[in-house]
Amino acid sequence: MVIAKKYVVLNPFVGEPKKSDFKIVEEELAELQENEFLAEAAFISVDPYQRMKLGASFPCDMIGGQVAKVIESKNPDYPVGTWVMGHFGWRTHTITKPENEKFCMQKPYLHKLPDFGDLPVSLALGVCGRVGNTAYLGFTEICQPKAGETVVVSGAAGAVGSHVGQIAKILGCRVIGFAGTDEKCEWLIKELGFDYAGNYKTTDISKFLKDSAPNGVDCYFDNVGGELSTMVMSQMNQYGRVAVCGAISTYNETDPEKRKATILQPLIVSKQLKIEGFLVNRYADRTLEGIHQNLKWVKEGKLKYKEHVTDGFETAVDAFIGLFRGDNIGKSLVQVK
Amino acid sequence: MVIAKKYVVLNPFVGEPKKSDFKIVEEELAELQENEFLAEAAFISVDPYQRMKLGASFPCDMIGGQVAKVIESKNPDYPVGTWVMGHFGWRTHTITKPENEKFCMQKPYLHKLPDFGDLPVSLALGVCGRVGNTAYLGFTEICQPKAGETVVVSGAAGAVGSHVGQIAKILGCRVIGFAGTDEKCEWLIKELGFDYAGNYKTTDISKFLKDSAPNGVDCYFDNVGGELSTMVMSQMNQYGRVAVCGAISTYNETDPEKRKATILQPLIVSKQLKIEGFLVNRYADRTLEGIHQNLKWVKEGKLKYKEHVTDGFETAVDAFIGLFRGDNIGKSLVQVK
Repeated sequence: MVIAKKYVVLNPFVGEPKKSDFKIVEEELAELQENEFLAEAAFISVDPYQRMKLGASFPCDMIGGQVAKVIESKNPDYPVGTWVMGHFGWRTHTITKPENEKFCMQKPYLHKLPDFGDLPVSLALGVCGRVGNTAYLGFTEICQPKAGETVVVSGAAGAVGSHVGQIAKILGCRVIGFAGTDEKCEWLIKELGFDYAGNYKTTDISKFLKDSAPNGVDCYFDNVGGELSTMVMSQMNQYGRVAVCGAISTYNETDPEKRKATILQPLIVSKQLKIEGFLVNRYADRTLEGIHQNLKWVKEGKLKYKEHVTDGFETAVDAFIGLFRGDNIGKSLVQVK
Repeated sequence: MVIAKKYVVLNPFVGEPKKSDFKIVEEELAELQENEFLAEAAFISVDPYQRMKLGASFPCDMIGGQVAKVIESKNPDYPVGTWVMGHFGWRTHTITKPENEKFCMQKPYLHKLPDFGDLPVSLALGVCGRVGNTAYLGFTEICQPKAGETVVVSGAAGAVGSHVGQIAKILGCRVIGFAGTDEKCEWLIKELGFDYAGNYKTTDISKFLKDSAPNGVDCYFDNVGGELSTMVMSQMNQYGRVAVCGAISTYNETDPEKRKATILQPLIVSKQLKIEGFLVNRYADRTLEGIHQNLKWVKEGKLKYKEHVTDGFETAVDAFIGLFRGDNIGKSLVQVK
């Protein structure tokens, strides 16, 4: 009999998530039924969206993707040894079958990993997974970037932001990133090839943009929201396009006054901006297309990535809290096995 | 020799426009040259956008559309007696020719009036003109409304808003308007057929929307911006569409803190909203199509309108100031002759 460990969220988060909001629970798994397999987690994914997408009733199981290996199977499509990506939540062992997709809010629920060659399987949670598809599909579909245009990325040192900026460079754009430490900005410029990167905490943002984007901003990929976004939009060109991927600046903010920023509507009208929010779920039917495109760029050396890996199932909550404090550079992961 | 009177704006507006920001100047007009005609204004248009679209140097001529009659002509396409709509500014007499379009920021610069039958020529500045096209083209193109959907309109008793709500009814939508007085709300429901209308100054907006839009809001046509818009968007459905036509709540606001509202990005992401600002100029090549569609609806009795007419060239500034105080129901016009 297999004992699974899983994280349960005890109550809704108020402000920053706390350790006491979570509990690790052990669970005895049943025998495999026809068509089921048992997967053992190798890495679990820690993402800002998990803050927002929990269910309405508590306690509830923590959501999230994981890379896992099939260690027992009654499903001939998923033989022992198969590597999968699955939205099984934060848990060590899972008995499931493809049909369980209908119970899952995150799409895709389950897919086999492509052949990563010498690359680590953890990429299936980052640059060659949901995060990579968020960057690739969200940016290209919503911002419709063209060579020679100027692109701004907020949260640029995060997993999605750092990926978006590199795609923009591949497509021939001028790329400006905003991040929260000088170390992150240096990484963006020196390692990832961003043209400019500014520390939004210490930089005069308007002046920085005037200097780095003298012809104005055409595309803005926003992970942050708030006053920074208003300032970026104030320097956009006519018919500028904005993809809103996240609003991490306010996820943990409980003071209503601090959730306010200078309103966007006068800019939206006068510049005829198009702003669209998206969740990567909408592109679920293009999952493998996106993974293969990103994998190709990684293998060609055009797309670099960084993983922020913490070791051990018990480190997940600390890693999660760290996301909102800006502790991570690149994709945050927990190595379970 | 003809003496024209025109309004000159002496300096940029600070806060609410003031009478002392304007001066009426007399100007001797030259002799007509080949291809030119002399037009005498009958009505001049008073619109919120005029607040925003002045040039960068002062003093400058006040911008705006007018309905005028050709009273002298050296252009065979515009014989004496022709009625035209022209963006000539706030002035009584104008010598021009179609080629002057290149000097005008407002599109279309000039067109002949269609046959209005028994209807007044002033409609060419309202329901069958730029305002009507703003409503018809902006709403249908950007919001893509479908029968059975729920549509919210802010600034609903203004010229554009009252028109949008009626089109939404023609298209089979549930229509909710917000306006600033009970009298305006009553007009929207009793005369124009809105399903619901709320006084945003006295109503609990969130509760009002929950009651009037129990299935959520699909389309929002926004003339106002600010906290009202955040509240509307918080009750939108997945993939909701927002057309941003104006932001009159802040045009005259000089206190930066009062230009703030609860940020939209968390709503934009989680509901995957698409928000697009527009200026009717972008549809200039569809001007006559829009006018004929709106004229057809007016003649069929499906589209009602109200004109807020003040009498005399000298009343224009008062009418303009009144726009931002909510004095008008329907299209604000100045009758010159």
